[in-house]
Amino acid sequence: MERSKTVKELLDELGEEKVIADRNVVGLYSREPDGLTAQAEAVVFPSTPQEVSRVVATCYANDTPIYPQGSSSSLSGNAVPLNGGIVLSLERMSSILDVSLVDSTTDVEPGVRIDDLNVELSKRGYMFPVDPASQAVATVGGSINNGAGGMRGAKYGTMKDWVNGLEVVLADEAGTRLELGCRTVKCREGYDLVRLIVGSEGTLAVVTRATLRIAPLPEKVVTALAFFDDIESLMKAYISIKSSRVQPYIAEFMDAPTVEMASQAVSLPFEAKGDMLLVSLESTPESSERHLRWLEDLMRSSGARGVYTAESEAEAEPLYQLRRSLFPAQVNMFRREGRPFQLFIEDIVVPPSRVPDAIRALRSLDSKYGITSSLGGHIGDGNLHPAIGFDPTDPESSKAAAQWFDDVVDVALRLGGAVSAEHGIGIIKREALRRAVGERQLGLMRAIKAAFDPRGILNPGKLFSDKKGYN
Amino acid sequence: MERSKTVKELLDELGEEKVIADRNVVGLYSREPDGLTAQAEAVVFPSTPQEVSRVVATCYANDTPIYPQGSSSSLSGNAVPLNGGIVLSLERMSSILDVSLVDSTTDVEPGVRIDDLNVELSKRGYMFPVDPASQAVATVGGSINNGAGGMRGAKYGTMKDWVNGLEVVLADEAGTRLELGCRTVKCREGYDLVRLIVGSEGTLAVVTRATLRIAPLPEKVVTALAFFDDIESLMKAYISIKSSRVQPYIAEFMDAPTVEMASQAVSLPFEAKGDMLLVSLESTPESSERHLRWLEDLMRSSGARGVYTAESEAEAEPLYQLRRSLFPAQVNMFRREGRPFQLFIEDIVVPPSRVPDAIRALRSLDSKYGITSSLGGHIGDGNLHPAIGFDPTDPESSKAAAQWFDDVVDVALRLGGAVSAEHGIGIIKREALRRAVGERQLGLMRAIKAAFDPRGILNPGKLFSDKKGYN
Repeated sequence: MERSKTVKELLDELGEEKVIADRNVVGLYSREPDGLTAQAEAVVFPSTPQEVSRVVATCYANDTPIYPQGSSSSLSGNAVPLNGGIVLSLERMSSILDVSLVDSTTDVEPGVRIDDLNVELSKRGYMFPVDPASQAVATVGGSINNGAGGMRGAKYGTMKDWVNGLEVVLADEAGTRLELGCRTVKCREGYDLVRLIVGSEGTLAVVTRATLRIAPLPEKVVTALAFFDDIESLMKAYISIKSSRVQPYIAEFMDAPTVEMASQAVSLPFEAKGDMLLVSLESTPESSERHLRWLEDLMRSSGARGVYTAESEAEAEPLYQLRRSLFPAQVNMFRREGRPFQLFIEDIVVPPSRVPDAIRALRSLDSKYGITSSLGGHIGDGNLHPAIGFDPTDPESSKAAAQWFDDVVDVALRLGGAVSAEHGIGIIKREALRRAVGERQLGLMRAIKAAFDPRGILNPGKLFSDKKGYN
Repeated sequence: MERSKTVKELLDELGEEKVIADRNVVGLYSREPDGLTAQAEAVVFPSTPQEVSRVVATCYANDTPIYPQGSSSSLSGNAVPLNGGIVLSLERMSSILDVSLVDSTTDVEPGVRIDDLNVELSKRGYMFPVDPASQAVATVGGSINNGAGGMRGAKYGTMKDWVNGLEVVLADEAGTRLELGCRTVKCREGYDLVRLIVGSEGTLAVVTRATLRIAPLPEKVVTALAFFDDIESLMKAYISIKSSRVQPYIAEFMDAPTVEMASQAVSLPFEAKGDMLLVSLESTPESSERHLRWLEDLMRSSGARGVYTAESEAEAEPLYQLRRSLFPAQVNMFRREGRPFQLFIEDIVVPPSRVPDAIRALRSLDSKYGITSSLGGHIGDGNLHPAIGFDPTDPESSKAAAQWFDDVVDVALRLGGAVSAEHGIGIIKREALRRAVGERQLGLMRAIKAAFDPRGILNPGKLFSDKKGYN
């Protein structure tokens, strides 16, 4: 393949070690777990903010699309290089630069993985509380751009609540470097550009450094896992918890068919049957017994069949196994011997009080499409992850999946929810975004995009293009 | 005074009960506690979002400035009607529309006062954790627009962390009503316009409704108040707390001269002398004794002279009395018999680890100007409120105050802090904002302003005008 002017210039500036045009390598950086693939011209691996600045300036001069990437574990086509151009991989900028307990902050480069950060912080008794399911590979930069959430969302919020300041590179002639926000949690310096970048999916600027808030690890965490005969009883238990002035540390659920499938994927030390509710509470050594008994009693009096408890996070590991096996269970559930297969994980959110309505509506889609979807999620914040499998090579199968997808989005919007909780818009949900917010609001977002990225070179085709569909 | 076309049209639309042009009434709505005064043409009191929409559309058609106001307790000239036009008071839209414990949300109109909201929530065992010192009068809408903080900032963040969704009116021909964000804490629907409005000081849109997150009240709160001989010992105690994986519920301080002055303003059941550190921790009934003993021991071993403790929030009231008397103490401290007097409360923030450096730098300004400033603040989040008094009718006194102000801002910027933590930019800190963020970043903010408010009718002259000085 003929090398473009941009790639030649980048090779001159950064050298062969940092600018890879090999088709196979580039291919690896041009695909996502959602099944979307494309082919960029090259992958560039800067190791300093200065180099990011030079890459962006070069691309700006040549009108070349830039696709910033962390670990590319996104699920909505957020990072796939749709229109040629270059992938800007931040994976070589992966240093934890500073941890300050007094300031409750850590300074990190964008390529630091969330799990690696938490290993460092836990040595000091602290944590970074945003825990996307992909945290083993998900990077800080990717999580910022995708406004990541996770299991602790209800109590600790999402990425937007844990970024104090950012250093970014702008898409202009100079690849201007800017510091946005503050080092401190209180920060009133005009419009909140930090939170404009959080969740912008790489379309406004390239993040080269972040000052994150950190939180102390809880003294103690107690956990109860319960199975219910129906979702109403499960919800009764959850409502009792919330009415007792308790914000669970974690509150997860899986519905009965999914529990059944997941329980076949792992060997469990308890009987897993029915709708699952898994609740962890922050506690203290002196109060853990009372908190745990209260949780157990509440679950039983709400109609739980089996309740299993753990007095520490280590003891709770087996209780979390079922929830953690959701993804492999989904793969098992939908794989068909000898057929190409794509797992499609939805990411809607509804107010927690509407979760029973959402589950009923999603189950009725199963009847409509003659499928059994899998259904689990974060009941604490109302984030549901229904999933189906389909054959991407079969037009019928793909079409049915697309229709199911539209119907799921309808459920969210009808129940006062949102089309995405934590996976974002990317390519897959552009039409859903338009339906959710309307043209006037989209116009404001486009104006912001134009102000930050006048040539539209940063992650083009994401969020906005009105092209419909998921691929 | 001749009534303008706008006021006549508004009178026709809303009637005399909702459009007040009486000079005296208007005057009351045209002044702030920071001493800034102006004179709007009229005050308009809409009682529905529809009426807000009509007011904005009318003003848009006539190019009339709109100054949205809550209780006008802001301290940086954020709400003062600088250029004529109308004050849009949201005080008649003051209903708490919904409280949902299951969803951890409350829906409120913008005129609801923070204290009134907390009275309602506390009946259910919940709270709205953002607690500006002005919470008795501060409204939700004003607090959103000003990105308010408070004593719980270090643990609970600021307003930006507690708003899920907003209903706003845009400054366009139709006074378009838009819903921004979600009802849920997880929300990924394009750019985060909610947090763009939070802290925008009424310059982007008029907030007509908000969905706020709420938090359960802690089971128990323990408090220790200690006095130290020097700020280094006080800081040693604070560092020990943070190094023990504890994020205090509240951590306040006042320096020795201010303690001395404040202790004269109230009658206290303990000896108040030296630098004060006041720390509250969230706890449980079973753990409160251990937590409190730990806190007391830590303060003593760091060199505290007197330590006073309380095992409940009710018991802690007297311990908070000193901190709460900061404002009257400042008034006492600076008032001079028979002279006009304006209290000037600064609002810088530095990383908590730099607080001792900041205090030293601020004290050296005292020598430079031959004054004794008062100094207290939120040590947990590094937010300092140095204060001086000056005679606004005396050019010499005003000039010295302005110079002191510039020097204080320098201290913040030199120590990696920000020019405002929670009071905002308004008129008073426009030049400080420019110094802090620079022209490129200000340009991005101006572009956002232009996208939302093309005619520049919303709270004009705030944030951006490059006019220097504090009045």
